Amino acid sequence: MQVYKAPIRDMRFVLAEMNDMADFEPLGFDGFDLELADTVLEESARFCEEVLLPLNASGDAEGCTFENGVVRTPRGFREAYAKFRESGWTSLAADVEHGGQGLPESLGKLVEEMSCSANMSFGLYPGLTRGAYVALKAHGSDELNARFLPKMVSGEWAGTMCLTEAHCGTDLGLLRTRAVPKEDGSHAVSGSKIFISSGEHDLADNIIHLVLARLPDAPKGVKGISLFLVPKLVPMEDGRPGARNGVDCVGLEHKMGMKASATCQMNFNESKGWLVGEPHKGLAAMFAMMNSERLSVGIQGLGVAEIAYQSAVAYARERLQGRALSGVKSPEKPADAIIVHPDVRRNLMRMRAETEGCRALGAWVARALDRLERSKDKAVRQEAEDFCALMTPVVKALFTDLAFENASRGVQVYGGHGYIRDHGVEQFVRDSRIAMIYEGTNGIQALDLVGRKLPAHMGRYLRTFFHPVSAFIEANSADPQIGEMVKGLSRAFGALQLATATIAQRGLRDPEEAGAAASDYLRLFGLVALAYLWARAAKIAHEKMPAANGDASFYRAKLATAQFFYDRVLPETAGLFAAVKSGKASTMALEEAAF
Amino acid sequence: MQVYKAPIRDMRFVLAEMNDMADFEPLGFDGFDLELADTVLEESARFCEEVLLPLNASGDAEGCTFENGVVRTPRGFREAYAKFRESGWTSLAADVEHGGQGLPESLGKLVEEMSCSANMSFGLYPGLTRGAYVALKAHGSDELNARFLPKMVSGEWAGTMCLTEAHCGTDLGLLRTRAVPKEDGSHAVSGSKIFISSGEHDLADNIIHLVLARLPDAPKGVKGISLFLVPKLVPMEDGRPGARNGVDCVGLEHKMGMKASATCQMNFNESKGWLVGEPHKGLAAMFAMMNSERLSVGIQGLGVAEIAYQSAVAYARERLQGRALSGVKSPEKPADAIIVHPDVRRNLMRMRAETEGCRALGAWVARALDRLERSKDKAVRQEAEDFCALMTPVVKALFTDLAFENASRGVQVYGGHGYIRDHGVEQFVRDSRIAMIYEGTNGIQALDLVGRKLPAHMGRYLRTFFHPVSAFIEANSADPQIGEMVKGLSRAFGALQLATATIAQRGLRDPEEAGAAASDYLRLFGLVALAYLWARAAKIAHEKMPAANGDASFYRAKLATAQFFYDRVLPETAGLFAAVKSGKASTMALEEAAF
Repeated sequence: MQVYKAPIRDMRFVLAEMNDMADFEPLGFDGFDLELADTVLEESARFCEEVLLPLNASGDAEGCTFENGVVRTPRGFREAYAKFRESGWTSLAADVEHGGQGLPESLGKLVEEMSCSANMSFGLYPGLTRGAYVALKAHGSDELNARFLPKMVSGEWAGTMCLTEAHCGTDLGLLRTRAVPKEDGSHAVSGSKIFISSGEHDLADNIIHLVLARLPDAPKGVKGISLFLVPKLVPMEDGRPGARNGVDCVGLEHKMGMKASATCQMNFNESKGWLVGEPHKGLAAMFAMMNSERLSVGIQGLGVAEIAYQSAVAYARERLQGRALSGVKSPEKPADAIIVHPDVRRNLMRMRAETEGCRALGAWVARALDRLERSKDKAVRQEAEDFCALMTPVVKALFTDLAFENASRGVQVYGGHGYIRDHGVEQFVRDSRIAMIYEGTNGIQALDLVGRKLPAHMGRYLRTFFHPVSAFIEANSADPQIGEMVKGLSRAFGALQLATATIAQRGLRDPEEAGAAASDYLRLFGLVALAYLWARAAKIAHEKMPAANGDASFYRAKLATAQFFYDRVLPETAGLFAAVKSGKASTMALEEAAF
Repeated sequence: MQVYKAPIRDMRFVLAEMNDMADFEPLGFDGFDLELADTVLEESARFCEEVLLPLNASGDAEGCTFENGVVRTPRGFREAYAKFRESGWTSLAADVEHGGQGLPESLGKLVEEMSCSANMSFGLYPGLTRGAYVALKAHGSDELNARFLPKMVSGEWAGTMCLTEAHCGTDLGLLRTRAVPKEDGSHAVSGSKIFISSGEHDLADNIIHLVLARLPDAPKGVKGISLFLVPKLVPMEDGRPGARNGVDCVGLEHKMGMKASATCQMNFNESKGWLVGEPHKGLAAMFAMMNSERLSVGIQGLGVAEIAYQSAVAYARERLQGRALSGVKSPEKPADAIIVHPDVRRNLMRMRAETEGCRALGAWVARALDRLERSKDKAVRQEAEDFCALMTPVVKALFTDLAFENASRGVQVYGGHGYIRDHGVEQFVRDSRIAMIYEGTNGIQALDLVGRKLPAHMGRYLRTFFHPVSAFIEANSADPQIGEMVKGLSRAFGALQLATATIAQRGLRDPEEAGAAASDYLRLFGLVALAYLWARAAKIAHEKMPAANGDASFYRAKLATAQFFYDRVLPETAGLFAAVKSGKASTMALEEAAF
């Protein structure tokens, strides 16, 4: 069964114990405090558990339907979306000036995680609107933004990003969609796009597409791509949606999972669009959306991993098979619950250690997003921007790789019952699989990390991660409680530093060296980041436990899980380091014809 | 697209170069030589490529249907099965006395691999018949076998194994199906079974169920389970199928994948059955089938990994995105094929290295099966039996874990095009997932390895693997060509030996210690086995290359792939060793309520 209770206690831990609530003070989030955060988290939990979760399996079974150009979401989605919107979940972290509630991303990302746990397909609809909002806010003209953003923030209108064409996904330089300037300052956009999530659906009154296209005078390749805002319905003077705009859904993809999310083939036929940002600089503008989406996709992974974990735990507690190796645990029953078995626990603990670790890392990055967005101190903003740039590919790829692995672990706990559709846990495997691909495959994330983020400004981005880790190791290596753990962190961190230097040196000489090492390096990087956060979590748990009273079991669990991470997950870094060191030779040696 | 050409060259390599054709001589496989093997492999390849492969995606899309107790396989399956049977593929490795062709398992397993590559769902139907044949041959009475085996060998009748009940899969001690003795020496079998692969279908004239049930006087638990042969239709005097036997399919499971394989809920209502083997010793008799099936499930994994690999290579050669980091490769095209990119190659090489490694390991075990079955030397048979007992859980769990990982890697090479159903590669992920579960979850395989196989006869089984590896290391550590590789093997093997000793010591004191280490230990064991075989393959490639002429590129590819395995796969053993060493404490520490 799909079991989910929002992990509010752990969310409060990453929000207010792993990070400092006082951080928000200088950022001007007026009135935001832990009490408000708690209220929002509890409301969100209730909504996700009561409204979104019951639609998750039914949405998967029913899927979206396509008839005469009309896309229908599964039963219940329209009503749920209307409630979602009315309850203010679309406007949470949006700016007050656009009708948003002006709450921090540190809270917004936790709420996002909940909706992705309860219903990943559903969560993608508002997720893309949020991404489009981010791109427009950064690059749209004031006029365009005044016209479109408030409706997107309120959720009345939805958003998409239209990049991919049949012949190009990763390599956007090949794209063919074109935009011809019109006398009124708008453009006529024509072309075909594929894999457009939420390209057409029945949840919102209008859909605002952000479309990459070429102007007539565009240079070839990626330097000739511009970004356009193309609404499904052109708004009238009074702001209401008006006439159809030559934007048509011509097909719906049949996919492995995410069946309640409409993945559309879209045709643009001289559709009216407006330039967003400067001509030929569309990729940069789109990257504002893409970076926001990449973090969100990481959070999707985290969300699915959490529900997979909870669903596996629930089954492990109730399924009776065999007897505990340490002696019968439930003599009154015909067998013990399988949670007593070490190999089942190994799966559950790994899911738990990785998921909670990712939540802490997501919270760290979200805090930087808030500083980047709101700090009045330029140096603080720069440092936050560097950190977000560095961590975005790590969060996207690491969280989604782990999500797929853990969704599969969850199925394993269920055994044969996990493989049949009735329990709904194989859906997590199918749903989570896309997150490793969309918004840039995880291989592309790894190349972004080693090819762009490491060398940027002579390694300046990297310092935003390396410095706090170094400082923590130095300050805590003799700590009587976590000193042993810090030794393990120090070893893994040393390997990461060496791997970084190796890639930097070899990559300068030969970019294929960096390319061959990229994916293993990203995972090494990600595991070290989780190890750092687990050591910090353990330190906090030790500090708080003596006075924790009723909360002591929470901190005891933190310590146990931290130790598991160090014992059984972190050691993977040794193999990753060796793989990075081995260089490109054997990866590139095979003649192409010999494959 | 689902692309598959049977890897005959590599099959010949594992059959006749990694192993010695002269081995067959003393086993009495009259007339079996490389020429005959080649003919069989080529015929099988043609059948799998031309008949089974085209039904793979369509079978997945259509699935089996269930109406009024009748199960229909997808369009084309009946005709394909009739051809399969008529072409003799069901009787290949069966004994001549039962109408079989008496060919070695060393050949049979390669043919099995092909059918599982081309159509894993299809392959399971004859696969289960083969397993039932093995169990009956070992434990059935002469009378029973004379009556049933020839029809099963000819494929006119199919077989199943009926173990699982709704409340028990792993823990068979809980099973409730009962068998009451009748005056004519038969038994009336009654009960409900679930997850019965091929439980009901329209391919064969009759279905022979091997059913675990309890006799009235049965002791509780696993020592009170007996095995019964229960036909769907009771054969008449003349051997033709007669009346219905109270065996009913009452439901079909909806599954993540394997949709063309009928997974049935079966009711037995006073069905006529005959005891197989001794009363209350049914589990041992069923294990004859189970062990054969476990190897076959490993081979299924290998088969799916192979087609996932080939399909990924085909796409990587044709999909144009970006330019090679080392300079433009196809200036006449708008972009280079993605096979030029190091991160794509990393995925392809890993799939290749693991798949070819598993094929070599499968061939090694199959050779032992042939000796076990046919050798006239008792000591040889014993040694072969020990080796098969040891390696069965490793083959089952390692091959299927890697198959799922590699099916997923294949999807990653396709990017978004892999996630939609059109290309058919996401099917490999869904299909392969079951192989980690059925015939004993991979966690159970790991417990079998550490709990039964390691300690058996004071480690006697283990020696059948450790001795040849030790001897190879000793003989080749100074080899000018593979000496470096052998050093890597020696390190990993040293870790395996230490891990074995650790588990043996701690496990004696506390079985939970062995349980907590089991899965990581099994993977460590499996990777060392692949490393040993890759070093041997490299040695052979070096020896043969000088005189290879047209075949030189095959041996060059072997060397490149072996090196990749040592550079980028084997290092994983370091983390596995550390995880094993860490012990059970952190795996078992969390209070159950805290999960």
